[in-house]
Amino acid sequence: MATATRWVYYFGNGKADGKGDQKLLLGGKGAGLAEMTRIGLPVPGGFTITTDACEAYNKRGQKWPTGMEKQIKANLAKLERGCKKKLGNAKNPLLVSVRSGAAQSMPGMMETILNLGLNDKSVEGLANVSGSRRFAFDAYRRLIMMYGSTAKGVDRMLFEEAFDELKEVRTAQRLGLGAGETAADTDANAEELADLVETFKTIYRDGCGEAFPQDPFQQLKGAISAVFDSWMLDKAITYRQVENITGLNGTGVNICQMVFGNMGDDCGTGVCFTRDPSTGETVFYGDLLINAQGEDVVAGVRTPLKLEELKKLMPEVYQQLEAVRVILEVHYKEMQDLEFTIERGKLYMLQCRTGKRSPQAAFRIAVEQATKPLLKTAAAKKLVSKKYLPKKTADLATKPIITKDDAILRIQAADVERLFYPVLDSNVTASELASREMGEGIGAVPGAAGGEIAFSAERAEARAQSGVDVILVRKETSPEDVGGMHASAGILTATGGKTSHAAVVARGWGKCCVVGCGALDIDYANNTMTLGGKTLNEGDTITLEGSSGKIYEGLIDLVPPVAPKEYETIMTWADKRRRMKVRANADTPVDALKAVELGAQGIGLCRTEHMFFDPSQPQRLTSMRRMILADNEPDRRAALDALLPYQREDFEGIFAAMHNLPVTVRLLDPPLHEFLPQSDNPEGQRAVVDQINEALDDAGSSSDRITVEDIARRVEQLHESNPMLGHRGCRLCITYPEILEMQVRAIIEAAINCTERGTKVLPEIMIPLSIDDKELGILIERTRAVANAIIKERKSRLKYLVGTMIETPRAALLADRMANVSDFFSFGTNDLTQTTMALSRDDAGRFLPDYVDADHAGIFKHDPFQTLDADGVGRLVRIACDESRSTKRNIKLGICGEHGGDPESIQFCDAVGLEYVSCSPLRVPIARLASAQATIRAEAKPKAKPGATLKVRSMSKASVLPKRTKRKVAAPKKTSKKAKPSAKRKAAAKGKPTARKTAKRKLARTR
Amino acid sequence: MATATRWVYYFGNGKADGKGDQKLLLGGKGAGLAEMTRIGLPVPGGFTITTDACEAYNKRGQKWPTGMEKQIKANLAKLERGCKKKLGNAKNPLLVSVRSGAAQSMPGMMETILNLGLNDKSVEGLANVSGSRRFAFDAYRRLIMMYGSTAKGVDRMLFEEAFDELKEVRTAQRLGLGAGETAADTDANAEELADLVETFKTIYRDGCGEAFPQDPFQQLKGAISAVFDSWMLDKAITYRQVENITGLNGTGVNICQMVFGNMGDDCGTGVCFTRDPSTGETVFYGDLLINAQGEDVVAGVRTPLKLEELKKLMPEVYQQLEAVRVILEVHYKEMQDLEFTIERGKLYMLQCRTGKRSPQAAFRIAVEQATKPLLKTAAAKKLVSKKYLPKKTADLATKPIITKDDAILRIQAADVERLFYPVLDSNVTASELASREMGEGIGAVPGAAGGEIAFSAERAEARAQSGVDVILVRKETSPEDVGGMHASAGILTATGGKTSHAAVVARGWGKCCVVGCGALDIDYANNTMTLGGKTLNEGDTITLEGSSGKIYEGLIDLVPPVAPKEYETIMTWADKRRRMKVRANADTPVDALKAVELGAQGIGLCRTEHMFFDPSQPQRLTSMRRMILADNEPDRRAALDALLPYQREDFEGIFAAMHNLPVTVRLLDPPLHEFLPQSDNPEGQRAVVDQINEALDDAGSSSDRITVEDIARRVEQLHESNPMLGHRGCRLCITYPEILEMQVRAIIEAAINCTERGTKVLPEIMIPLSIDDKELGILIERTRAVANAIIKERKSRLKYLVGTMIETPRAALLADRMANVSDFFSFGTNDLTQTTMALSRDDAGRFLPDYVDADHAGIFKHDPFQTLDADGVGRLVRIACDESRSTKRNIKLGICGEHGGDPESIQFCDAVGLEYVSCSPLRVPIARLASAQATIRAEAKPKAKPGATLKVRSMSKASVLPKRTKRKVAAPKKTSKKAKPSAKRKAAAKGKPTARKTAKRKLARTR
Repeated sequence: MATATRWVYYFGNGKADGKGDQKLLLGGKGAGLAEMTRIGLPVPGGFTITTDACEAYNKRGQKWPTGMEKQIKANLAKLERGCKKKLGNAKNPLLVSVRSGAAQSMPGMMETILNLGLNDKSVEGLANVSGSRRFAFDAYRRLIMMYGSTAKGVDRMLFEEAFDELKEVRTAQRLGLGAGETAADTDANAEELADLVETFKTIYRDGCGEAFPQDPFQQLKGAISAVFDSWMLDKAITYRQVENITGLNGTGVNICQMVFGNMGDDCGTGVCFTRDPSTGETVFYGDLLINAQGEDVVAGVRTPLKLEELKKLMPEVYQQLEAVRVILEVHYKEMQDLEFTIERGKLYMLQCRTGKRSPQAAFRIAVEQATKPLLKTAAAKKLVSKKYLPKKTADLATKPIITKDDAILRIQAADVERLFYPVLDSNVTASELASREMGEGIGAVPGAAGGEIAFSAERAEARAQSGVDVILVRKETSPEDVGGMHASAGILTATGGKTSHAAVVARGWGKCCVVGCGALDIDYANNTMTLGGKTLNEGDTITLEGSSGKIYEGLIDLVPPVAPKEYETIMTWADKRRRMKVRANADTPVDALKAVELGAQGIGLCRTEHMFFDPSQPQRLTSMRRMILADNEPDRRAALDALLPYQREDFEGIFAAMHNLPVTVRLLDPPLHEFLPQSDNPEGQRAVVDQINEALDDAGSSSDRITVEDIARRVEQLHESNPMLGHRGCRLCITYPEILEMQVRAIIEAAINCTERGTKVLPEIMIPLSIDDKELGILIERTRAVANAIIKERKSRLKYLVGTMIETPRAALLADRMANVSDFFSFGTNDLTQTTMALSRDDAGRFLPDYVDADHAGIFKHDPFQTLDADGVGRLVRIACDESRSTKRNIKLGICGEHGGDPESIQFCDAVGLEYVSCSPLRVPIARLASAQATIRAEAKPKAKPGATLKVRSMSKASVLPKRTKRKVAAPKKTSKKAKPSAKRKAAAKGKPTARKTAKRKLARTR
Repeated sequence: MATATRWVYYFGNGKADGKGDQKLLLGGKGAGLAEMTRIGLPVPGGFTITTDACEAYNKRGQKWPTGMEKQIKANLAKLERGCKKKLGNAKNPLLVSVRSGAAQSMPGMMETILNLGLNDKSVEGLANVSGSRRFAFDAYRRLIMMYGSTAKGVDRMLFEEAFDELKEVRTAQRLGLGAGETAADTDANAEELADLVETFKTIYRDGCGEAFPQDPFQQLKGAISAVFDSWMLDKAITYRQVENITGLNGTGVNICQMVFGNMGDDCGTGVCFTRDPSTGETVFYGDLLINAQGEDVVAGVRTPLKLEELKKLMPEVYQQLEAVRVILEVHYKEMQDLEFTIERGKLYMLQCRTGKRSPQAAFRIAVEQATKPLLKTAAAKKLVSKKYLPKKTADLATKPIITKDDAILRIQAADVERLFYPVLDSNVTASELASREMGEGIGAVPGAAGGEIAFSAERAEARAQSGVDVILVRKETSPEDVGGMHASAGILTATGGKTSHAAVVARGWGKCCVVGCGALDIDYANNTMTLGGKTLNEGDTITLEGSSGKIYEGLIDLVPPVAPKEYETIMTWADKRRRMKVRANADTPVDALKAVELGAQGIGLCRTEHMFFDPSQPQRLTSMRRMILADNEPDRRAALDALLPYQREDFEGIFAAMHNLPVTVRLLDPPLHEFLPQSDNPEGQRAVVDQINEALDDAGSSSDRITVEDIARRVEQLHESNPMLGHRGCRLCITYPEILEMQVRAIIEAAINCTERGTKVLPEIMIPLSIDDKELGILIERTRAVANAIIKERKSRLKYLVGTMIETPRAALLADRMANVSDFFSFGTNDLTQTTMALSRDDAGRFLPDYVDADHAGIFKHDPFQTLDADGVGRLVRIACDESRSTKRNIKLGICGEHGGDPESIQFCDAVGLEYVSCSPLRVPIARLASAQATIRAEAKPKAKPGATLKVRSMSKASVLPKRTKRKVAAPKKTSKKAKPSAKRKAAAKGKPTARKTAKRKLARTR
């Protein structure tokens, strides 16, 4: 670095050192100023100090990096030459504003110091030049207050109190106001303000122990350092943590010549958007204050006018601004958020950035940008004729400015997500919310929900049945709680992360869920919860906000979501563009229907175990428990026989809902202990004894009746130190083949029953947790034996697939061998992440934040349970994809872990060539969109020539795996070239139209 | 397969279809018969039915494979032609024996049917030919009994009772014996035996519902099928399970012309060994019965003569047999176990196989074979002159017959292991043992131990202190129990496998340990244990046998082990040959000294957490607990300060013991909850409160005193669903950097203290459980900062290394990046196996046996916690080795998982080029030997030419990874070629002479 580094970038008079795409270096504000200057918009001159300088400053222990001061002085001199004014000059003083600006908008940092350059001498010069002594001293008192409070930590209240006192007493007296009446800010006259400046100087000196600096360069230095320091303020750090902002090195500092919106009625200031940010309508939208400075808009002291008013007040300025709107939106091809100031009838642009918008607006803007002109032809002509708008820009503005692909790329996952969940009513005031806030957990499923607190699943169910909205509050949840979870409007847990049991289950239902609220203390014994110093009882009400993770006392009004019609337009475009299919993880007919409604093209994961917990049919769980408690095969088989009709019925429902779409059914996965009340729940165990013995009586069974001791002993036997790595998944079927047999029978019989009723069924039977080709071979052979026998007996022509989940590193490493016996693989990346990283998702909440927190260790960019860890887990996925295809080139590959609904992970899935992603029903729209975005981005890369290799896309880890990647990713391409469909493959294709289509499309793309 | 398959292999008249190396196909017996025939030894003619035939038979549902009967008939005809007799012929009948024979000796299968071919007619022919009607009918009655009982399931007792009755009544009467006196077998005369045959036929018919077959081919078919069936008998399956015999497909069947050792005093039969199998002495050793059949030797009815007697009785036969001894040992280069029969003065060899031997004999035989002649020159001359021995064989026999390398390869891990543990006194009779046996668990650490039962660690310690031998009996053990475990003579647990906590800790100490005894029921409340129907109280005695896993009631006499002097010889040879170094896993100075004594060249894993449990210094654990309970950094630091002197003292002890040898110290690894009494132990929690508060009082601490609620809350907070994947390892140091700082300080200060006293210390600081290069970088940087500050302050010149354990899949996959910041890697293959396979070693005991059991699922060849899973875990190790070397070519690589002491895994470690293996001290000799064996085997492979690639050795997975392997394994070679030692590397080499030497040797080998 050292002296050669450029720390400062100038802009002014139509030229700029920086560019709009240098946000990381210049910050968003700095890049916008530079770009606006470049494209000829009226921007006051100035210069930007880089974010690198901020990083260097903080690294050097709050010292300016070498050379920076010199560069600032040089740029300041250039600015002074440009506007023919001098900082601190007693006659014609240059005033500047100093603003922070990082690459991402970030409240919490020091924002602005205006009027810098004023001192006891230059204030007179300003008075002279502006013709208003009052104006000059008003500017000076503002500077002392802003500089004192934001740069030097003097209490802002002290300044405000002094001003208030002036207005209440002296000004009010002068104006002859009555007792209790207060004069307005603007009522104070020049003398009063001049005296106020002296008072402010005293407050300043008392507050920070030094006099207000009269040397304007000292002011500038102080302001710049204060901006740098503010990057490391706790509130800024916290904001970055909360918003998961990583990869930034600091804030830029923008020093800009002051322009004044408060020099009279031909002055003003405002903010505007190139389109309506809440509806997305194609109108010019904004707020305006006449005779005011920018901070007055922000402070909300005066009620602003609508932007249209400007049309009447200053029609030329309005037209100019309208032209700026068009120029910037055409230039950036995105809705812009602008700040401007009018000084004595002259327009200055102070900021432009991509504008934030409501989810509804996001869709409408994208669709309208891609289908409608920004500007009507008549309006365009007028602006061109006035020379406010170049002809070329006008031509562009009267046509759609982006493509459909651009529109698809424009939509964020959060835009989609927020369309589907109820939210807190925006009419509830911030102070109301603040007073109700009890604390904060991890927002696991967005949306909001309020209701009565229930501390047990049973209570939740009971209260819900009597029609009450319930919030289930638990330390953590387990499959036993599923009934109560389903009955609840929202779920709050003290432990767990975004992929804990509670989060995963709730997400499947789109149910508001806040997890990992470490401060939450639940006293089950007394049925109370304590949080944020408040203790609530069961039956009291709370409201959860599932995006922020906040918990509020009492009920807060919610409003339902509304999807705009443009949502459907975008999704239709996306569906046409994407290569990958999107399936849903759904366990019930209701969820399956929901998934289809949201656009799912199949079920990628149907978890059979959830079916056992249906609270409306407790016999299911009882039979399951009977099976677990059986200590010999005949008893176990008898219990399984009792379960068979339930399972078959469930599958029939799901198959019916998924007519003509594939359904992947996973065989029993969790460890058996999850189905029994544990040793800390003796009442639960006693209840189970009664239920089972009743069931045995009803069945007239000759088996021994069970006792509490039997359960206790079995629970003890089933206890595991690490159940995640224990006796579960297909290991259960190795030990108890009869479980597999029952489940396969239920699936196949259900499929045949449906087929006979005219439903087209495509069942895919999935073996969980396999780690070995021999193990998998044994289980698949058994599956086929059972299935084929039934098919033969029923004289059916049912086709079905058998495959496995790849959810352990060993399975990924042996995928080539496992592909020999398997029709398909589905990547279970939740468990694969847990095992690859030795990271329990239920326990990681305690320390994973330290890993993801950028300002602590910053080890991971994302929570690996939310976004696939491309380096580790992703490498295993890639190995498995490449090598399994080398064994069986057409093997069907998909993903059914939580990552299947995460856009960045979906892009990875596309890059490794998966055929589909599967996610919870409510994330299906996100997945459809993200998948289309992945296709579009992949095509945007330089096309692979025939014979060349398919390059790894954005998320991948090319550096580590160059040779493998090249060699292997090329393989499927070669394959599709050679492929002359055999009779057999044609038949297969008939049964699986999707696979064929995909192959074709891939062929088209790679050729 | 079908008709073309050869199911039958003939041997006879000096020619054989099969060979000695076809054990897998022909079984051990069949291969031996073929080979002896080939080399010209006198073997009766016959043929062998292959093990493939057995497999085909069992696969086809107990049907003979196509073509087998035809082939048997053809070979039978050939045999008949060869000996000029016919099966079942009434004049000159051929009799045959039918014997099973798998590739490995396997009691439990049907063994032998003799005299097959006799029927009512041919028995007369035999009488004629043999000249003895008595002999013929004796043979016939034997056939009916053997065929009936072994092939047809008729109760053998019924036959024996009938014979006994005959002898007691009729024969006794005829001989005029007194009441209560019984005649001998040989007393029964021809008539009596002829009548007995009729009685036997009746018993046979009554027993199996059909007449004894008179068709000799039907007898033959029945006998062959019976042998095949016996492969699947429960007892055979159980034996294979228990002995971990896998990879065999069935048993062979040997049909051999009968020769008779019971036709008079010029006949006999015997078994002999080419050397003494219990001492290893170079003498001809065996047992002999005159006028007897082989089964009489086995049955132990008569007391056999010593083999030397034959020298007097039949000197020529003896000399012939002596020549056979020499021919076979020279041929096989191994001590042989022989069976022979003498028929009317003519010697026939019936079996030869490599002989089982005591561990002492194994060493002596190997050394003597490699250094001394088998035969003195005079004796050789005599045998040559008699033409019993070819001159060439005599020449070979008068010189050492194997090389030192052969001798090294000859020793098995079990031979070494059994040298070091006390064993049950062989004077205790089998029946005594049987009556005392209560049950069986998994033998985790060999040797035997007896003592008083203690059900708690406290009780074990207390009783041990009063001088009593104690066996600690627990459901499972935890680090809390370590004190009691150490105090005990042996450990028995109800749960866990060979790598459970109990097993691992006990193995480290070489302490007898039996785990996973599922049938063991412990009632802690009443202090009783129930096993095998017996209930014992605390204070009662039991004896454990740690090889078989058997548990005996009461105390059984033990004898201490004795290592022969040849042990030292072999180890010296091995040390000269091996490429890899051998280190030990040791946590205390005592263990460290033991390790050095056993030949360890350093410590590869010193676990710091075990130090906290030293029962003689309870303050350690108290300080640790104080640290865990601290809820702020100052309190935590105060507790750590209290721990510092203890840790420093420990390290000083270990460094002193390991003068001039490297010591790898692993920082704190286990989750913190392991240090606190859990919620089921409130008394324990109360005791901890008192201890900590006392310590705080003693230290005059101003910190708050703790309460039982504090502990309970912390325990609750620390509870994890899957602690294996939880907050442990280096994750603790990310959260609490002060733990790392204290430990690094202790290590470095200890090292400097030792250095100042003249001890040469080579500390290697190891970070556990890292999963990311950034995470590791942060911790290594912190480590270096602390260490370097101390070194600077103390003006020391201490050199140290910092590295990490590779024990998660992600670490292996990111090894290239982690190598950038790390001086060394040590593979922690225990945890790597757990995570790669999603297999908890503490829980897998419940289902892993189903996976390893060849006759159930047979999924894994070995328990993956004992022998490294080359396909999955091994592939990750290979990836990490190859790719880390590509980043840092000289990175030090070792292994410290349990696999470091397993011979097959050691061979893998050699193949991937690790610098050292580290294992528990008592396995160091095995590792030294196995490492030498790996070197020898690697050299025996075709040498890699310069530029060619190093081939993957035995255990590897070449088929899956050919390209990677070739490309990557070649890398270090290229490296060593290029390497011109820089000044820096020279200096490093000075500090690490071992690393240099290894590199040189590797260079020499690969060029």
